[in-house]
Amino acid sequence: MNQGITLYHYWRSSSSWRVRWGLEIKGVKHVKVPVNILGAEEKLPGYVAKNPSGYLPCLVVEGHQPLGESIAILEWLEETFPQPSFFSGDAFERALIRQLAETVNSGTQPLQNPDVSKLHSPDKDEQTRWMKHWIERGLGVFETLLEKDGRRTKFSVSGQPSLADLCLIPQVYAANRFGVDMDKFPRCRDIYAHAMTEPSCIASHPDRFKPAP
Amino acid sequence: MNQGITLYHYWRSSSSWRVRWGLEIKGVKHVKVPVNILGAEEKLPGYVAKNPSGYLPCLVVEGHQPLGESIAILEWLEETFPQPSFFSGDAFERALIRQLAETVNSGTQPLQNPDVSKLHSPDKDEQTRWMKHWIERGLGVFETLLEKDGRRTKFSVSGQPSLADLCLIPQVYAANRFGVDMDKFPRCRDIYAHAMTEPSCIASHPDRFKPAP
Repeated sequence: MNQGITLYHYWRSSSSWRVRWGLEIKGVKHVKVPVNILGAEEKLPGYVAKNPSGYLPCLVVEGHQPLGESIAILEWLEETFPQPSFFSGDAFERALIRQLAETVNSGTQPLQNPDVSKLHSPDKDEQTRWMKHWIERGLGVFETLLEKDGRRTKFSVSGQPSLADLCLIPQVYAANRFGVDMDKFPRCRDIYAHAMTEPSCIASHPDRFKPAP
Repeated sequence: MNQGITLYHYWRSSSSWRVRWGLEIKGVKHVKVPVNILGAEEKLPGYVAKNPSGYLPCLVVEGHQPLGESIAILEWLEETFPQPSFFSGDAFERALIRQLAETVNSGTQPLQNPDVSKLHSPDKDEQTRWMKHWIERGLGVFETLLEKDGRRTKFSVSGQPSLADLCLIPQVYAANRFGVDMDKFPRCRDIYAHAMTEPSCIASHPDRFKPAP
Protein backbone atom coordinates (compact mmCIF):
# COMPACT_ATOMS: atom_id res chain seq x y z
CA MET A 1 0.00 0.00 0.00
CA ASN A 2 2.94 2.29 0.66
CA GLN A 3 3.95 2.01 -2.97
CA GLY A 4 2.47 3.55 -6.07
CA ILE A 5 0.90 6.58 -4.37
CA THR A 6 0.99 9.89 -6.26
CA LEU A 7 -0.18 13.25 -4.93
CA TYR A 8 -1.19 15.86 -7.50
CA HIS A 9 -0.92 19.23 -5.76
CA TYR A 10 -0.29 22.94 -6.21
CA TRP A 11 2.12 24.65 -3.83
CA ARG A 12 -0.21 27.51 -2.82
CA SER A 13 -3.50 25.59 -2.78
CA SER A 14 -4.62 25.34 0.85
CA SER A 15 -6.41 22.02 0.27
CA SER A 16 -3.17 20.63 -1.21
CA TRP A 17 -1.27 21.61 1.95
CA ARG A 18 -3.84 19.78 4.11
CA VAL A 19 -3.03 16.52 2.31
CA ARG A 20 0.74 17.14 2.06
CA TRP A 21 0.72 17.61 5.84
CA GLY A 22 -1.48 14.56 6.40
CA LEU A 23 0.83 12.34 4.33
CA GLU A 24 3.79 13.69 6.31
CA ILE A 25 2.11 12.91 9.67
CA LYS A 26 1.27 9.37 8.57
CA GLY A 27 4.72 8.86 7.03
CA VAL A 28 3.22 7.57 3.78
CA LYS A 29 5.77 7.20 0.97
CA HIS A 30 4.54 8.91 -2.21
CA VAL A 31 5.50 10.91 -5.27
CA LYS A 32 4.40 14.54 -5.61
CA VAL A 33 3.39 15.94 -9.00
CA PRO A 34 2.82 19.70 -9.22
CA VAL A 35 -0.19 20.88 -11.26
CA ASN A 36 -0.43 24.57 -12.05
CA ILE A 37 -4.17 24.96 -11.96
CA LEU A 38 -3.87 28.66 -12.67
CA GLY A 39 -1.64 28.05 -15.66
CA ALA A 40 -2.23 27.37 -19.31
CA GLU A 41 -5.52 25.74 -20.24
CA GLU A 42 -3.70 23.08 -22.25
CA LYS A 43 -2.23 21.64 -19.04
CA LEU A 44 -5.64 20.92 -17.63
CA PRO A 45 -7.34 18.18 -19.72
CA GLY A 46 -5.03 15.42 -18.47
CA TYR A 47 -5.65 16.46 -14.88
CA VAL A 48 -9.41 16.90 -15.24
CA ALA A 49 -9.57 13.31 -16.54
CA LYS A 50 -8.25 12.30 -13.10
CA ASN A 51 -10.26 14.75 -11.01
CA PRO A 52 -13.43 15.99 -12.74
CA SER A 53 -13.75 19.00 -10.42
CA GLY A 54 -10.44 20.31 -11.76
CA TYR A 55 -9.55 21.25 -8.18
CA LEU A 56 -6.47 20.15 -6.29
CA PRO A 57 -5.36 17.94 -4.62
CA CYS A 58 -5.91 14.49 -6.04
CA LEU A 59 -4.39 11.27 -4.72
CA VAL A 60 -3.81 8.35 -7.06
CA VAL A 61 -3.18 4.91 -5.62
CA GLU A 62 -2.01 2.51 -8.33
CA GLY A 63 -4.83 0.27 -9.53
CA HIS A 64 -7.60 2.41 -8.03
CA GLN A 65 -9.75 5.32 -9.14
CA PRO A 66 -8.17 8.71 -8.32
CA LEU A 67 -9.37 10.28 -5.07
CA GLY A 68 -10.38 13.94 -5.09
CA GLU A 69 -11.56 16.23 -2.27
CA SER A 70 -9.06 16.76 0.54
CA ILE A 71 -11.42 15.65 3.34
CA ALA A 72 -12.23 12.40 1.52
CA ILE A 73 -8.49 11.81 0.99
CA LEU A 74 -7.67 12.54 4.65
CA GLU A 75 -10.46 10.26 5.95
CA TRP A 76 -9.15 7.54 3.59
CA LEU A 77 -5.62 8.04 4.94
CA GLU A 78 -6.99 7.81 8.49
CA GLU A 79 -8.77 4.52 7.73
CA THR A 80 -5.82 3.05 5.81
CA PHE A 81 -2.95 4.27 8.03
CA PRO A 82 -4.56 4.69 11.47
CA GLN A 83 -1.47 5.93 13.37
CA PRO A 84 -0.62 8.66 14.17
CA SER A 85 -4.31 9.59 14.13
CA PHE A 86 -5.87 12.82 12.84
CA PHE A 87 -8.38 12.46 15.69
CA SER A 88 -8.38 12.19 19.48
CA GLY A 89 -10.82 11.57 22.32
CA ASP A 90 -14.37 10.19 22.19
CA ALA A 91 -17.05 10.52 19.50
CA PHE A 92 -17.94 14.04 20.73
CA GLU A 93 -14.33 15.19 20.51
CA ARG A 94 -14.08 13.70 17.02
CA ALA A 95 -17.30 15.55 16.12
CA LEU A 96 -15.79 18.82 17.39
CA ILE A 97 -12.66 18.15 15.30
CA ARG A 98 -14.83 17.58 12.21
CA GLN A 99 -16.98 20.64 12.98
CA LEU A 100 -13.83 22.78 13.15
CA ALA A 101 -12.48 21.19 9.96
CA GLU A 102 -15.77 21.84 8.13
CA THR A 103 -15.84 25.43 9.36
CA VAL A 104 -12.83 25.87 7.06
CA ASN A 105 -13.50 23.18 4.45
CA SER A 106 -17.09 24.07 3.56
CA GLY A 107 -17.58 27.36 5.44
CA THR A 108 -14.53 29.33 4.33
CA GLN A 109 -12.19 27.90 1.69
CA PRO A 110 -14.76 27.40 -1.13
CA LEU A 111 -15.65 31.10 -0.94
CA GLN A 112 -12.05 32.29 -1.34
CA ASN A 113 -11.33 29.98 -4.28
CA PRO A 114 -9.88 32.03 -7.19
CA ASP A 115 -12.61 30.93 -9.62
CA VAL A 116 -15.27 32.11 -7.15
CA SER A 117 -13.76 35.52 -6.41
CA LYS A 118 -13.13 36.04 -10.15
CA LEU A 119 -16.73 35.25 -11.05
CA HIS A 120 -17.87 37.62 -8.29
CA SER A 121 -15.96 40.55 -9.78
CA PRO A 122 -13.29 41.29 -12.39
CA ASP A 123 -11.93 43.99 -10.05
CA LYS A 124 -8.82 42.82 -8.10
CA ASP A 125 -9.55 45.01 -5.06
CA GLU A 126 -13.13 43.74 -4.88
CA GLN A 127 -11.84 40.17 -5.19
CA THR A 128 -9.58 40.77 -2.17
CA ARG A 129 -12.43 42.37 -0.17
CA TRP A 130 -14.64 39.35 -0.96
CA MET A 131 -11.96 36.85 0.10
CA LYS A 132 -11.16 38.76 3.31
CA HIS A 133 -14.85 38.95 4.18
CA TRP A 134 -15.29 35.17 4.05
CA ILE A 135 -11.94 34.35 5.65
CA GLU A 136 -12.72 36.69 8.57
CA ARG A 137 -16.20 35.22 8.95
CA GLY A 138 -14.82 31.67 8.94
CA LEU A 139 -11.93 32.31 11.31
CA GLY A 140 -14.34 34.17 13.61
CA VAL A 141 -16.49 31.04 13.85
CA PHE A 142 -13.42 28.84 14.38
CA GLU A 143 -12.12 31.14 17.15
CA THR A 144 -15.53 31.20 18.90
CA LEU A 145 -15.76 27.41 18.80
CA LEU A 146 -12.31 27.17 20.44
CA GLU A 147 -13.26 29.79 23.05
CA LYS A 148 -16.50 27.96 23.92
CA ASP A 149 -14.64 24.67 24.14
CA GLY A 150 -12.22 26.34 26.51
CA ARG A 151 -9.20 24.06 26.35
CA ARG A 152 -5.80 25.71 25.95
CA THR A 153 -3.90 23.08 24.01
CA LYS A 154 -1.06 23.82 21.59
CA PHE A 155 -3.13 22.61 18.64
CA SER A 156 -6.92 23.07 18.36
CA VAL A 157 -8.03 20.22 20.63
CA SER A 158 -4.83 18.54 21.86
CA GLY A 159 -1.04 18.69 21.75
CA GLN A 160 -1.03 16.92 18.37
CA PRO A 161 -2.29 18.23 15.03
CA SER A 162 -5.79 16.95 14.19
CA LEU A 163 -7.97 17.19 11.09
CA ALA A 164 -9.05 20.60 12.47
CA ASP A 165 -5.46 21.91 12.36
CA LEU A 166 -4.80 20.39 8.94
CA CYS A 167 -7.59 22.69 7.73
CA LEU A 168 -6.88 25.70 9.98
CA ILE A 169 -3.18 26.25 9.31
CA PRO A 170 -3.40 26.51 5.48
CA GLN A 171 -6.41 28.83 5.96
CA VAL A 172 -4.42 31.13 8.26
CA TYR A 173 -1.57 31.10 5.70
CA ALA A 174 -4.10 32.36 3.12
CA ALA A 175 -5.45 34.90 5.63
CA ASN A 176 -1.95 36.32 6.09
CA ARG A 177 -1.53 36.47 2.34
CA PHE A 178 -4.69 38.55 1.92
CA GLY A 179 -3.86 40.90 4.79
CA VAL A 180 -6.30 39.64 7.44
CA ASP A 181 -5.39 40.96 10.89
CA MET A 182 -4.83 37.72 12.81
CA ASP A 183 -4.75 39.53 16.16
CA LYS A 184 -8.56 39.45 15.92
CA PHE A 185 -8.28 35.65 16.21
CA PRO A 186 -5.69 35.13 18.97
CA ARG A 187 -6.21 31.37 19.51
CA CYS A 188 -5.94 30.70 15.75
CA ARG A 189 -2.89 32.99 15.55
CA ASP A 190 -1.15 31.17 18.42
CA ILE A 191 -1.94 27.71 17.02
CA TYR A 192 -0.50 28.84 13.68
CA ALA A 193 2.68 30.08 15.39
CA HIS A 194 3.01 26.73 17.17
CA ALA A 195 2.41 24.80 13.92
CA MET A 196 5.36 26.63 12.35
CA THR A 197 7.60 24.75 14.85
CA GLU A 198 6.10 21.31 14.05
CA PRO A 199 8.40 19.26 11.75
CA SER A 200 5.53 17.62 9.78
CA CYS A 201 4.01 21.05 9.13
CA ILE A 202 7.34 22.61 8.13
CA ALA A 203 8.06 19.72 5.73
CA SER A 204 4.73 20.29 3.95
CA HIS A 205 4.81 24.12 3.95
CA PRO A 206 3.95 25.82 0.62
CA ASP A 207 7.26 27.72 0.51
CA ARG A 208 9.06 24.40 0.13
CA PHE A 209 7.14 23.73 -3.11
CA LYS A 210 7.19 27.18 -4.66
CA PRO A 211 8.57 26.93 -8.19
CA ALA A 212 11.74 28.87 -8.94
CA PRO A 213 10.89 32.21 -10.59
CA MET B 1 -28.21 8.09 24.03
CA ASN B 2 -31.52 7.87 22.23
CA GLN B 3 -32.95 10.44 24.63
CA GLY B 4 -32.42 14.15 24.89
CA ILE B 5 -31.49 14.73 21.25
CA THR B 6 -32.71 17.95 19.62
CA LEU B 7 -32.30 18.90 15.97
CA TYR B 8 -32.41 22.61 15.13
CA HIS B 9 -33.30 22.85 11.46
CA TYR B 10 -34.95 24.93 8.75
CA TRP B 11 -37.36 23.23 6.37
CA ARG B 12 -35.75 24.48 3.14
CA SER B 13 -32.07 24.34 4.21
CA SER B 14 -30.44 21.56 2.24
CA SER B 15 -27.93 20.81 5.00
CA SER B 16 -30.86 20.42 7.42
CA TRP B 17 -32.48 17.86 5.14
CA ARG B 18 -29.25 15.83 5.06
CA VAL B 19 -29.40 15.42 8.84
CA ARG B 20 -33.20 14.93 9.02
CA TRP B 21 -32.78 12.09 6.51
CA GLY B 22 -29.78 10.66 8.38
CA LEU B 23 -31.69 10.60 11.68
CA GLU B 24 -34.58 8.89 9.89
CA ILE B 25 -32.29 6.19 8.39
CA LYS B 26 -30.70 5.50 11.79
CA GLY B 27 -34.09 5.58 13.55
CA VAL B 28 -32.78 7.97 16.22
CA LYS B 29 -35.50 9.40 18.46
CA HIS B 30 -35.25 13.19 18.66
CA VAL B 31 -37.15 16.46 18.89
CA LYS B 32 -37.11 18.88 15.94
CA VAL B 33 -37.01 22.65 16.55
CA PRO B 34 -37.50 24.90 13.51
CA VAL B 35 -35.24 27.97 13.26
CA ASN B 36 -36.10 30.57 10.65
CA ILE B 37 -32.62 31.72 9.76
CA LEU B 38 -34.00 34.09 7.13
CA GLY B 39 -36.38 35.65 9.64
CA ALA B 40 -36.11 38.50 12.08
CA GLU B 41 -32.64 39.27 13.43
CA GLU B 42 -33.93 39.07 17.00
CA LYS B 43 -34.55 35.35 16.61
CA LEU B 44 -30.88 34.71 15.99
CA PRO B 45 -28.90 35.43 19.18
CA GLY B 46 -30.22 32.39 21.05
CA TYR B 47 -29.37 30.16 18.12
CA VAL B 48 -25.93 31.64 17.43
CA ALA B 49 -25.02 30.91 21.06
CA LYS B 50 -25.53 27.24 20.16
CA ASN B 51 -23.97 27.31 16.71
CA PRO B 52 -21.50 30.19 16.20
CA SER B 53 -21.69 29.93 12.40
CA GLY B 54 -25.38 30.82 12.57
CA TYR B 55 -25.96 28.15 9.92
CA LEU B 56 -28.32 25.21 10.19
CA PRO B 57 -28.58 22.45 11.23
CA CYS B 58 -27.32 21.97 14.77
CA LEU B 59 -27.73 18.83 16.88
CA VAL B 60 -27.85 19.09 20.65
CA VAL B 61 -27.32 15.98 22.75
CA GLU B 62 -28.18 16.66 26.38
CA GLY B 63 -25.07 17.21 28.47
CA HIS B 64 -22.77 17.84 25.52
CA GLN B 65 -21.65 20.80 23.43
CA PRO B 66 -23.95 21.46 20.44
CA LEU B 67 -22.77 19.94 17.16
CA GLY B 68 -22.80 22.09 14.04
CA GLU B 69 -21.85 21.27 10.42
CA SER B 70 -23.98 18.58 8.78
CA ILE B 71 -21.02 16.37 7.78
CA ALA B 72 -19.64 16.40 11.33
CA ILE B 73 -23.13 15.53 12.64
CA LEU B 74 -23.59 12.70 10.12
CA GLU B 75 -20.15 11.22 10.85
CA TRP B 76 -21.00 11.40 14.59
CA LEU B 77 -24.31 9.62 13.92
CA GLU B 78 -22.43 6.96 11.94
CA GLU B 79 -19.96 6.36 14.78
CA THR B 80 -22.66 6.39 17.47
CA PHE B 81 -25.40 4.44 15.66
CA PRO B 82 -23.47 2.28 13.15
CA GLN B 83 -26.48 0.55 11.54
CA PRO B 84 -27.91 1.07 8.95
CA SER B 85 -24.65 2.54 7.70
CA PHE B 86 -24.21 5.67 5.57
CA PHE B 87 -21.31 3.83 3.90
CA SER B 88 -20.69 0.59 2.00
CA GLY B 89 -17.79 -1.38 0.57
CA ASP B 90 -14.07 -1.04 1.28
CA ALA B 91 -11.96 2.03 2.12
CA PHE B 92 -11.88 3.06 -1.57
CA GLU B 93 -15.67 2.88 -1.87
CA ARG B 94 -16.01 4.90 1.35
CA ALA B 95 -13.55 7.43 -0.14
CA LEU B 96 -15.68 7.67 -3.29
CA ILE B 97 -18.79 8.21 -1.13
CA ARG B 98 -17.02 11.00 0.77
CA GLN B 99 -15.68 12.52 -2.49
CA LEU B 100 -19.22 12.64 -3.88
CA ALA B 101 -20.55 14.08 -0.60
CA GLU B 102 -17.85 16.78 -0.57
CA THR B 103 -18.56 17.62 -4.21
CA VAL B 104 -21.87 18.92 -2.85
CA ASN B 105 -20.88 19.86 0.69
CA SER B 106 -17.83 22.00 -0.05
CA GLY B 107 -17.98 22.26 -3.84
CA THR B 108 -21.56 23.39 -4.38
CA GLN B 109 -23.78 24.19 -1.42
CA PRO B 110 -21.60 26.91 0.19
CA LEU B 111 -21.72 28.89 -3.07
CA GLN B 112 -25.51 28.86 -3.28
CA ASN B 113 -26.02 29.89 0.34
CA PRO B 114 -28.36 32.93 0.49
CA ASP B 115 -25.83 35.09 2.36
CA VAL B 116 -23.25 34.37 -0.36
CA SER B 117 -25.50 35.11 -3.34
CA LYS B 118 -26.77 38.26 -1.59
CA LEU B 119 -23.25 39.54 -0.96
CA HIS B 120 -22.40 38.80 -4.60
CA SER B 121 -25.20 41.01 -5.89
CA PRO B 122 -28.33 42.79 -4.66
CA ASP B 123 -30.03 41.92 -7.98
CA LYS B 124 -32.38 38.92 -7.69
CA ASP B 125 -31.82 37.74 -11.27
CA GLU B 126 -28.06 37.90 -10.84
CA GLN B 127 -28.39 35.97 -7.57
CA THR B 128 -30.26 33.22 -9.42
CA ARG B 129 -27.68 33.16 -12.26
CA TRP B 130 -24.89 32.86 -9.64
CA MET B 131 -26.63 29.99 -7.83
CA LYS B 132 -27.44 28.16 -11.06
CA HIS B 133 -23.83 28.50 -12.23
CA TRP B 134 -22.43 26.80 -9.13
CA ILE B 135 -25.17 24.19 -8.89
CA GLU B 136 -24.63 23.20 -12.54
CA ARG B 137 -20.88 23.07 -12.04
CA GLY B 138 -21.25 20.89 -8.93
CA LEU B 139 -23.84 18.51 -10.37
CA GLY B 140 -21.71 18.23 -13.53
CA VAL B 141 -18.78 16.99 -11.41
CA PHE B 142 -21.06 14.62 -9.47
CA GLU B 143 -22.51 13.22 -12.70
CA THR B 144 -19.01 12.72 -14.22
CA LEU B 145 -17.80 10.91 -11.10
CA LEU B 146 -20.79 8.54 -11.32
CA GLU B 147 -20.20 7.99 -15.06
CA LYS B 148 -16.52 7.21 -14.53
CA ASP B 149 -17.38 4.84 -11.69
CA GLY B 150 -19.81 3.16 -14.06
CA ARG B 151 -22.09 1.29 -11.66
CA ARG B 152 -25.82 1.55 -12.29
CA THR B 153 -27.22 1.27 -8.76
CA LYS B 154 -30.46 2.90 -7.61
CA PHE B 155 -28.59 5.23 -5.27
CA SER B 156 -25.15 6.70 -6.03
CA VAL B 157 -23.00 3.68 -5.14
CA SER B 158 -25.44 0.96 -3.99
CA GLY B 159 -29.09 0.13 -3.51
CA GLN B 160 -29.14 1.97 -0.20
CA PRO B 161 -28.76 5.70 0.44
CA SER B 162 -25.19 6.66 1.45
CA LEU B 163 -23.63 9.90 2.67
CA ALA B 164 -23.30 10.81 -1.03
CA ASP B 165 -27.09 10.61 -1.52
CA LEU B 166 -27.80 12.46 1.72
CA CYS B 167 -25.92 15.37 0.13
CA LEU B 168 -27.07 14.88 -3.48
CA ILE B 169 -30.84 14.73 -3.04
CA PRO B 170 -31.25 18.05 -1.15
CA GLN B 171 -28.93 19.63 -3.73
CA VAL B 172 -31.13 18.41 -6.61
CA TYR B 173 -34.19 19.73 -4.76
CA ALA B 174 -32.48 23.15 -4.71
CA ALA B 175 -31.51 22.76 -8.38
CA ASN B 176 -35.16 22.17 -9.30
CA ARG B 177 -36.16 25.20 -7.26
CA PHE B 178 -33.76 27.45 -9.17
CA GLY B 179 -34.75 26.10 -12.59
CA VAL B 180 -31.72 23.94 -13.38
CA ASP B 181 -32.45 21.54 -16.26
CA MET B 182 -31.86 18.16 -14.60
CA ASP B 183 -31.93 16.34 -17.95
CA LYS B 184 -28.31 17.50 -18.29
CA PHE B 185 -27.50 15.25 -15.31
CA PRO B 186 -29.44 12.05 -16.05
CA ARG B 187 -27.88 9.82 -13.36
CA CYS B 188 -28.48 12.46 -10.68
CA ARG B 189 -32.02 13.00 -11.99
CA ASP B 190 -32.79 9.25 -11.87
CA ILE B 191 -31.31 8.83 -8.37
CA TYR B 192 -33.47 11.75 -7.22
CA ALA B 193 -36.58 10.15 -8.73
CA HIS B 194 -35.75 6.90 -6.93
CA ALA B 195 -35.14 8.73 -3.63
CA MET B 196 -38.66 10.15 -3.83
CA THR B 197 -39.93 6.56 -3.37
CA GLU B 198 -37.70 5.86 -0.32
CA PRO B 199 -39.68 6.05 2.95
CA SER B 200 -36.81 7.61 4.98
CA CYS B 201 -36.36 10.29 2.33
CA ILE B 202 -40.08 11.01 2.10
CA ALA B 203 -40.35 11.31 5.90
CA SER B 204 -37.58 13.94 5.96
CA HIS B 205 -38.66 15.88 2.83
CA PRO B 206 -38.79 19.70 3.20
CA ASP B 207 -42.46 19.88 2.16
CA ARG B 208 -43.34 18.03 5.38
CA PHE B 209 -41.82 20.83 7.46
CA LYS B 210 -42.98 23.85 5.48
CA PRO B 211 -44.73 26.24 7.86
CA ALA B 212 -48.36 27.03 7.15
CA PRO B 213 -48.66 30.29 5.19
